[in-house]
Parts: sequence; structure tokens; C-alpha cells
Amino acid sequence: MRGLWLEAMRLAFRDDLAGPPLADGEGVVRVHLAGICGTDLELRRGYHAFTGVPGHEFVGIVEEAPSAPEWIGRRVVGEINAACGTCATCRAGRRTHCPARTVLGIRGRAGAFAERLALPLLNLHEVPAAVSDEEAVFTEPLAAALQIQAQVPLRADQRVLVLGAGRLGTLVARTLARTGAQVRVAARLAPRRDQLRAAGVDAVAPEEVLAGSADVVVDCTGHPEGFARARAAVRARGTIVLKSTYAGEAPVNLSSVVVDEITLVGSRCGAFAPALELLAARAVPVRDLVQARYPLARGTDAFAEAARPGA
Amino acid sequence: MRGLWLEAMRLAFRDDLAGPPLADGEGVVRVHLAGICGTDLELRRGYHAFTGVPGHEFVGIVEEAPSAPEWIGRRVVGEINAACGTCATCRAGRRTHCPARTVLGIRGRAGAFAERLALPLLNLHEVPAAVSDEEAVFTEPLAAALQIQAQVPLRADQRVLVLGAGRLGTLVARTLARTGAQVRVAARLAPRRDQLRAAGVDAVAPEEVLAGSADVVVDCTGHPEGFARARAAVRARGTIVLKSTYAGEAPVNLSSVVVDEITLVGSRCGAFAPALELLAARAVPVRDLVQARYPLARGTDAFAEAARPGA
Repeated sequence: MRGLWLEAMRLAFRDDLAGPPLADGEGVVRVHLAGICGTDLELRRGYHAFTGVPGHEFVGIVEEAPSAPEWIGRRVVGEINAACGTCATCRAGRRTHCPARTVLGIRGRAGAFAERLALPLLNLHEVPAAVSDEEAVFTEPLAAALQIQAQVPLRADQRVLVLGAGRLGTLVARTLARTGAQVRVAARLAPRRDQLRAAGVDAVAPEEVLAGSADVVVDCTGHPEGFARARAAVRARGTIVLKSTYAGEAPVNLSSVVVDEITLVGSRCGAFAPALELLAARAVPVRDLVQARYPLARGTDAFAEAARPGA
Repeated sequence: MRGLWLEAMRLAFRDDLAGPPLADGEGVVRVHLAGICGTDLELRRGYHAFTGVPGHEFVGIVEEAPSAPEWIGRRVVGEINAACGTCATCRAGRRTHCPARTVLGIRGRAGAFAERLALPLLNLHEVPAAVSDEEAVFTEPLAAALQIQAQVPLRADQRVLVLGAGRLGTLVARTLARTGAQVRVAARLAPRRDQLRAAGVDAVAPEEVLAGSADVVVDCTGHPEGFARARAAVRARGTIVLKSTYAGEAPVNLSSVVVDEITLVGSRCGAFAPALELLAARAVPVRDLVQARYPLARGTDAFAEAARPGA
């Protein structure tokens, strides 16, 4: 089949890929659309070793489902962590952290930038008819944004600062605004700030953020410098939510985290059902986040455009 | 007056110190006993710049209290953060994080390794008659240990690992055990492990700790390596409580904190009232944690003994 192939930090289009292997309880999905995420760009930069088809945000149609043929023909999105289901972590209800898990397009499982992918049927969610393909492809990042609220209780009197106005930062700001909290976005680029303000979101340049001015800071910058900025912006006893994954380590003054009693919360994937509900209710707009569409054969061009600052 | 003086990472006994300055609403305390804390040792190593009398754990008798003479003669311990009381942080109820605060023996305020110290009367707590001086001097570290429970909800089915079996680690283990959680201490030295086991505490060598085996890890090692050990020991979606302050930064793989959705909680000082209640009820033993007693004139020897591994 045709698809993108990542190997040793090089991405290429190929037309000689084997179809995805199908394990018990899994289904094959023909991909309609797939989205490029910051994690995909970081994977290509060597964030961690992955050889294979990248991509983990998709919408498509189930083509094969040997164990449950009723799935065939359904339009679906899919949770990306494929867990063993039997280990202590899975039994404790933390399936997305199963140590033996594969992760679509990230770890041990061919991903969505190909004609077909395979996932456990347990991971699939049928897309409501009211949700278009272009919207459905945002289910995974929207779920990741919603995960913040599942981890950190937010009140209306809290000042939340979102660092980074890329796709994830925008989705985080839009979902957090629904909690009633006072959400502000720090965006490097002036046109991005103008866009945010036009949409009613409070936006500032990073250098305008006052030290200690936020109760909660969410780092969606995708860069190690994001942490230092978050640390400066959060008040004593405040919370920093970490959403970015990137290669390498950041130097952290842990003693200052102790002295100021800061809480850091790592936050990754979220549940799909609430995200699909928001999309079906048109409660969080996503279509304006599509910058461009490329056919699969021009996937490397799409990566180049996505990696451009301000994309 | 006589006291210890820290300047440029050198500690010396002096008999020519000025008495502590007394501001409005403050009282002067004649110090009976003072304890050496890991933070004192780190201050001497240059953890942060402080010139003056160190020491922040004490018990003594109020000698002067111009604004409220009824305090004179009372035996007291004192909370160490002296806040302005009027800034936004103080008004929000986070007085221990007041940006203008002084901290006894740590920041802008002469400390307890001297004949007398001064603190706001608001900071003082009268010591119940049932609590001896030797016990009362543990109020501050016991309060710091209890602060963990004020920040992190603990359940009886949780596996809590305490890294470090120094004084703070021991107090943390003893107070956490009262929550019903399954507490285990990782201690480097075999005699320390034997002591812990004799007291009914589950103790292991650090290398015996299995990766991902703890729901909550409390780092009381006082060393930057403590974080790496905590990170290895905590399970996905677990919590690391940071209790140690030391000089310098630690390299942290923040992406792995995101992927494993770890929560890091910086934890510092706690409220004195619950600590005094525990001491009065003899609910947490502390007297066995006194390794030696030195007169003030031999304070530098006391620091040398406290800095010895295993002390």
C-alpha cells in the first residue's frame, strides 16, 4: 500500500508498504483524513526512536473486522494506545499507560499516514453523522486538550495562561474557556494574537506575561524553553500542566519548585467520548484549524508546511 | 550576644553579635534548643546566599513583646516565614509564599543558632506543658512532614515510598504511616534500615526498589540524584512529592513526565498547630531522632556531625 515511512529521522513517501498486520480483536481502517501533530514533527526530529508509518490522528471507514463484522462500513476515529488488557496497570484502569502497549504511529504500531491502519476494535469510536471528516480528525487532539480538565480542577476565579498558540494550544484555550476560568494565551506571532483576539480570546505576547501572574499555566509550546516560561509565569502554590513532548532534557531547579510549592502535572491522551460529544454539539470549533490539505503522495510537503513557524 | 554566623559558605561561632532587631508586632525569644536541618547544611554549601545567623527550628521563652506583654514568659515554637500580611499573596491566604517575606535563619532574618531571635508574635505557638523542649524543637520538621498530607490525598491502598531515612524522611514515614497507606522507606545504610524495621517500618535498600512500584514517592534525600530515583520508582500517573532543597539544577526529562502523566508536587513548610497536637498526644515519636546535643559555643562541631553520612 501507499504511505509515509519514517526511518532514522527521514520521512519518505512509499508505494510498496505491506498492509498493517491484523491481530485478534483488531480491525482494519481505510484512512480518509489524518492530521499532523507536534509529536509527529518531534518524532522526525528524533524525540524517540520509531521506524514505520507515523500518524495517530485519523478518521476512516472500517474495512475488516474478523471478530465483529458489524463494525465493517462504520466511520470511526480511534484511541491510539493499544493495551495488553491483562497486566496490573491495565487492571488498575490505566490502560493508556500499559507498559506493553503499542501506540499508533508512535510506538510499535504502523500509523495513519497510509491507506490503511489496524487498531483493536475496543479503541474505535463511531463518528456521529453530524460530525464531518474534517472535524472528526480533531477528536484525538481535542481529547488531549480535555484531559487537562480531567486532571486539574479549575474554578471560574482562576487565571489560566496557555503558552503556545499552535493547534494544541488553541484547542486547550477553547476547551478551558468552557470551564469559566479566565483564560489567556501567550503567542509569539502578532497575526496569531490578532486571530485569537478576533475569536474573543485574551492573547498577549510572551514578554507581556507578568511573573507569578497565573494560577495555572499550560505549556503547549513544544519546546524545552516553554518550561522556563511557565515557571516564571506561575504563582507560588500554582500548577504547571505539561502538554509538550520533545527530544532531550530540560534543566529544572527542583529546589525552587519545593520552595514555591509548585505542582507539575504531565498530561497526555484523553478519552474520546467527551471530545466527540463536543464536536457533535459544535461546542468547540475546529475547522478553522485546518491550514491546508495534501494528498498522501505529498505527505512530506505537508510535514514541511506543518513544521514552518506559525503554521 | 553569642551565636553562629554564616558568611560566604563559612560558619563560625562569635560572641560579638548584635541582638536581633525588633519590629512592630514582634517578640524576642531566648532560645533553649535549636535543631540542625538539611536546609542548614545546604545553606552552608551555598544553596542560596544568606549571611547571618542560620537556624530555623527552635524552642524558647519569650523575653520581650512590646505590643502584647502577655506573651512574655511563654514557652514557644515559631513558624519561620514572616509575611508582610498586606500583599495579594498574603490576602489570598498564602502567607508562607509572601514575596516580601523574611524567613528565620534562611532569608533576611537572623535565626535560631544564637541566644535570642525575633519573630512576629503572629508566628509564635505556645508549647503545651506535656511537650518537652527536646520534642518541641521537632515541631517545624514535623509540620513540614505533615504538609505532604495537606497537599496530596492518600488512601489506604496506596504504596508510598519515602526516599531517604534522615530525620525528615523518618518523620515523613512516621506521619504517612498514620494515614493507613502502605509506607516503605528506601535507606542507603544497613544500620538505618535495621532501626526502621525494629520500629515496624518497611525498609529496603534503594537498589531493591522496583521500577514503577510506588503510587507516591516522597524525595527526602536532599540530593539531586533523589529525583532520578523517584522518577524510576513511581508508576505511570503516580505522584512525586519533592521535599528536598539543594544547590543547583537537575536535568529532567519533562517529555517522559508528560508521557507517563506524572504529577510533581513541591512541598515545604506546614502548619504548626497539627504538629504540636501530635507531639502533645505522643502520636509520633521524635526523641529518638536526637543524635547528640552540643552547646552553642560548639555549634560548628554540631554542624560537622550533622553533615556526616548516616547522621
